[in-house]
Amino acid sequence: MKYQVGVIAGDGIGPEIVAEAQKVLNCVADKFGHEFEYEDILMGGCSIDATGEPLTDHAIEQALHSDAVLMGSIGGNTSTSPWYKLPPEKRPEAGLLKLRKSLNLFANLRPAYLYEELKEACPLRDDIIGTGFDMMIMRELTGGLYFGARKTSEVDGVVTAVDTLTYTENEIRRIAIKGFDIAMKRRRKVTSVDKANVLDSSRLWRKIVEEVAKHYPEVTYEHMLVDNCAMQLVKDPKQFDVILTENMFGDILSDEASMVTGSIGMLSSASLNDTKFGLYEPSGGSAPDIAGQGIANPIATILSAAMMLRYSFDLDKEADAVENAVKQVLKDGYRTIDIMPQEEDKKSAVEQVGTSRMGDLICERI
Amino acid sequence: MKYQVGVIAGDGIGPEIVAEAQKVLNCVADKFGHEFEYEDILMGGCSIDATGEPLTDHAIEQALHSDAVLMGSIGGNTSTSPWYKLPPEKRPEAGLLKLRKSLNLFANLRPAYLYEELKEACPLRDDIIGTGFDMMIMRELTGGLYFGARKTSEVDGVVTAVDTLTYTENEIRRIAIKGFDIAMKRRRKVTSVDKANVLDSSRLWRKIVEEVAKHYPEVTYEHMLVDNCAMQLVKDPKQFDVILTENMFGDILSDEASMVTGSIGMLSSASLNDTKFGLYEPSGGSAPDIAGQGIANPIATILSAAMMLRYSFDLDKEADAVENAVKQVLKDGYRTIDIMPQEEDKKSAVEQVGTSRMGDLICERI
Ligand SMILES: CC(C)[C@H](C(=O)O)[C@@H](O)C(=O)O
Ligand SMILES: CC(C)[C@H](C(=O)O)[C@@H](O)C(=O)O
Repeated sequence: MKYQVGVIAGDGIGPEIVAEAQKVLNCVADKFGHEFEYEDILMGGCSIDATGEPLTDHAIEQALHSDAVLMGSIGGNTSTSPWYKLPPEKRPEAGLLKLRKSLNLFANLRPAYLYEELKEACPLRDDIIGTGFDMMIMRELTGGLYFGARKTSEVDGVVTAVDTLTYTENEIRRIAIKGFDIAMKRRRKVTSVDKANVLDSSRLWRKIVEEVAKHYPEVTYEHMLVDNCAMQLVKDPKQFDVILTENMFGDILSDEASMVTGSIGMLSSASLNDTKFGLYEPSGGSAPDIAGQGIANPIATILSAAMMLRYSFDLDKEADAVENAVKQVLKDGYRTIDIMPQEEDKKSAVEQVGTSRMGDLICERI
Repeated sequence: MKYQVGVIAGDGIGPEIVAEAQKVLNCVADKFGHEFEYEDILMGGCSIDATGEPLTDHAIEQALHSDAVLMGSIGGNTSTSPWYKLPPEKRPEAGLLKLRKSLNLFANLRPAYLYEELKEACPLRDDIIGTGFDMMIMRELTGGLYFGARKTSEVDGVVTAVDTLTYTENEIRRIAIKGFDIAMKRRRKVTSVDKANVLDSSRLWRKIVEEVAKHYPEVTYEHMLVDNCAMQLVKDPKQFDVILTENMFGDILSDEASMVTGSIGMLSSASLNDTKFGLYEPSGGSAPDIAGQGIANPIATILSAAMMLRYSFDLDKEADAVENAVKQVLKDGYRTIDIMPQEEDKKSAVEQVGTSRMGDLICERI
């Protein structure tokens, strides 16, 4: 089969890491007899430089007619880059938010997984790590504070800023269904996170999640307050399977969870809508400080490509092959600099490689 | 001097832990020649049971004419307690929110501190703990999503819930000033946390914090996005001195920070307004599962009483005496069950004691 893949290389290390993911996709194409056709799409700082806008209508069009979009990362150094002198709606991140909304990408899946081989990178004590952990954060991505009305104005001579957090029952229902669906393919446990002791939107969230849960009798579910969840992720991450939550809480908790694994350079993400379309990107940032040096870790982007194979193209066998190749490359002792062990004696047991070599090594194992 | 102390024993372990803090205050009174006069104030579940309301006007009056209020904890088991069948504004927590607002307690100080003696309770790896960490979370407590207008209604046949996040420049300025003031008495570093790449309220927050910072040239300050802060608290908590943030972010981050220390039973908090008045309470919850067993850790409440001595009564010497007594009791090897070491060999080096005995031991050391 032939698949149209939109490619947002973006800023910072984006182009380097996306190139490796394309290398791996091409390898999958050869091996399994598929064809991936790429189209470059401008978004973020590079789009500002080229067009004055972080995301043009043309770019949205390109994304819309792709089967899926693979992304590197966008944005730059917020204190030194000229992009951050622009008004908020003109900055690189505004492009990403606009793309999420335009394509209705309401379901953000962020796996947070402890790699056995990278255990020593985990900031938690060994007895808390135990036999490891493996969560999926299901974050609502097109509602809440991110897309509510906002306004800064003078009220009686005092500058006042207002943001609004809105959720409709339908917005909650569709993400809850995605959350329970994915739990059915995993360990069948959903932790729905809210702040129902304070927010109306959270009370509606809880009510709708309970309704949806009735249709999944095999799934165990619980409600957890967001402040408690922020604690539990540190205290006992093993307890979680699927964490289902709204946009802002999901932003905070998914980053906390990925840091808890210690291997943020390894974590992929998918943003889906109601069709098979998806936007796939690594969890980490654009790391402008190391851009162009050929040392960035491409694995998160490669695993994002694997998620694309699985969720957008239904190519499970191919996705498995990529994921297994990544596991094998770690077993074989190859590391990019960000996942090198700290202790001298452990360093000698592995080999440090650059971005492109890591891509090659993964291809060899597919 | 004679001080009027309002006492909210509350629910769960509240009465037990507050009794120990009063014991310690009485000991301070004897030793330093002060007088503390206590008045019991009903709030939370016990108030619902007695009056039908989580906080009556009479109770607010009592708090208002106290010099300070010492609180245990409120609320119960949210899935089994009848209090949680009531509408949200009638539940135990609504009493606390109403008290914060009625008394204008806009500044919430939450120290998160690693106790040398309890290092093994910290969930982080030894090399991340390093020489320990000591932060102060300064959380805005009477604005933002907690107190904005909210509404659940049907819009075109679809149930829709809206909460609003509002901040005025004045609300931001007064908490920022408190944050920088406290940094001046500590290591002179402020990390202001917001989500300025998305929220108008955060952009106003950032602007006002920058204005306030100009008046504190000795304080180093930085802005950090909330998602990044949630990561940094796990990755490298040592980097923080004062974390300054709005209400909801502060709720999440302060709980995360207290769990990162591993000793939530040791952490106190103060909620202050523009006068010397303050509400002092432990960071942990009401722990209904262990209530009445005499095993709860009273130290967080005792340290909250110490904060009261310091911030409301300007009794620094007395506060130091209590804090040093707590440190000494740990050095001397006494532990409540929640801070007992896990390993068998370490267990034998310490003695497990109950709530009341812990209070006595601290008194002996004042
Ligand atoms: C760049 C920013 C707007 C974005 C978000 O907050 O959603 C990012 O933090 C993320 O999580 O993808
Ligand atoms: C009980 C609840 C409303 C409260 C809050 O969210 O402020 C609590 O979590 C706290 O942090 O004091």
